[in-house]
Amino acid sequence: MPRYALRIEYHGGPFAGWQRQADQPSVQGVIEAALARLEPRAHSIAAAGRTDAGVHALAQVAHCDLGKDWAPFRLAEALNYHLRPHPVAIIEAARVDDDWHARFSAMERRYLFRLLVRRAPATHDRGLVWQVRQALDLEAMRTGAAHLVGRHDFTTFRAVHCQAASPVKTLDEITIEERDRANGVEYRFHLRARSFLHNQVRSIVGTLERVGAGAWAPDDVRTALAARNRAACGPVCPPGGLYLAGVGYPDDPFTG
Amino acid sequence: MPRYALRIEYHGGPFAGWQRQADQPSVQGVIEAALARLEPRAHSIAAAGRTDAGVHALAQVAHCDLGKDWAPFRLAEALNYHLRPHPVAIIEAARVDDDWHARFSAMERRYLFRLLVRRAPATHDRGLVWQVRQALDLEAMRTGAAHLVGRHDFTTFRAVHCQAASPVKTLDEITIEERDRANGVEYRFHLRARSFLHNQVRSIVGTLERVGAGAWAPDDVRTALAARNRAACGPVCPPGGLYLAGVGYPDDPFTG
Repeated sequence: MPRYALRIEYHGGPFAGWQRQADQPSVQGVIEAALARLEPRAHSIAAAGRTDAGVHALAQVAHCDLGKDWAPFRLAEALNYHLRPHPVAIIEAARVDDDWHARFSAMERRYLFRLLVRRAPATHDRGLVWQVRQALDLEAMRTGAAHLVGRHDFTTFRAVHCQAASPVKTLDEITIEERDRANGVEYRFHLRARSFLHNQVRSIVGTLERVGAGAWAPDDVRTALAARNRAACGPVCPPGGLYLAGVGYPDDPFTG
Repeated sequence: MPRYALRIEYHGGPFAGWQRQADQPSVQGVIEAALARLEPRAHSIAAAGRTDAGVHALAQVAHCDLGKDWAPFRLAEALNYHLRPHPVAIIEAARVDDDWHARFSAMERRYLFRLLVRRAPATHDRGLVWQVRQALDLEAMRTGAAHLVGRHDFTTFRAVHCQAASPVKTLDEITIEERDRANGVEYRFHLRARSFLHNQVRSIVGTLERVGAGAWAPDDVRTALAARNRAACGPVCPPGGLYLAGVGYPDDPFTG
């Protein structure tokens, strides 16, 4: 059976998360249902990252096995047709080898977190950003973030129910960009690692926001990390600002 | 009664437009209802531009008369509290003279139109852009747009039910910006004039999209304008990409 990689964008708002669930809408569920419209049978797709409820994707990657030889472009178009009206879009499909795996072949995940600072409530971006009202100190957040780059035991920054075998991960990048926006200031956090722990990004951004607000000193981030204790973490921020922004593969199957 | 100017951002999606209607939700209606929570009585506010159903604002301006002396900052905060959960936000309030009028004092309106080109359906930006699937020629659109700048009879580019006394308007600016976006290309049209005719921006952008797609030659825009005939217009594009982006006053009452 030919295998296809799918690059997928979605709005996480209406979904209980990526993973298929018996009684709640999921991104995996609606894509598998669309596949069943193309080839009627049960489909099971695997993704590079299982995003939580309310978390978005700009470039999630999954793979599926199909019976027919589909031209990748036509496969993407047909899936998008059957995905309507869900806010899930196949940006690109690509033919891959039978042993290629969206999750196990991945060498890198990139996440974006959007944090909007302004007093008036968000209108156009509601559910797409995390909004706070208090001004933030960019340089303090950058100084705090620098303590997290590299190989560390991230026990402080992972959910208690995280199922990863080890809390030791290497965070390759965490950069923070400031953008003037219509009627506010937006901070964009870019994080990159081979893999992430459950709630790691939201735990880190929630903690750095406390640094930006002045409630934490930048060096408190180092202390929290060294504690290797979930209780030392700052507040975990809400999911609506988080985006799975990209997945890296040794030979990227996509052209776009 | 002290008069206040309000700078307002909103998502037009849930509303039948700016203007209060007996039986449908309107932006004016929800703001007047919020005012009535502050000072219980009937309120009637006037806006710089009456946006249609589905049209958004980054900076609509309206004024209201209140019985109490409100600190502008507290007025904005109190209104935002009572506007929840509507996607309408008071960005700033300012005290103005009793003869200041949001509509009649305005010297300039600015509109933004967001046009997204990509094949896969929009997810995060659904309802916030007009999406087309075919690539567009930016230079052709710019050449076509140049014919519209200046003082002209815009009969071709106004709705048949437009109530303006004269179809002659001066379009001071129409610029088109190209932006690479996640998974697509966005064209941002910026239009500026003292005032606009009903449906003028959507008629112009819909026509320029035809130019960008190659269905019209750039010079066909000049021919259409000269026809002074509504039937010569290209297709009017949908409202979701249109934003009232700003209103100019001789002495801007706002600080932000």
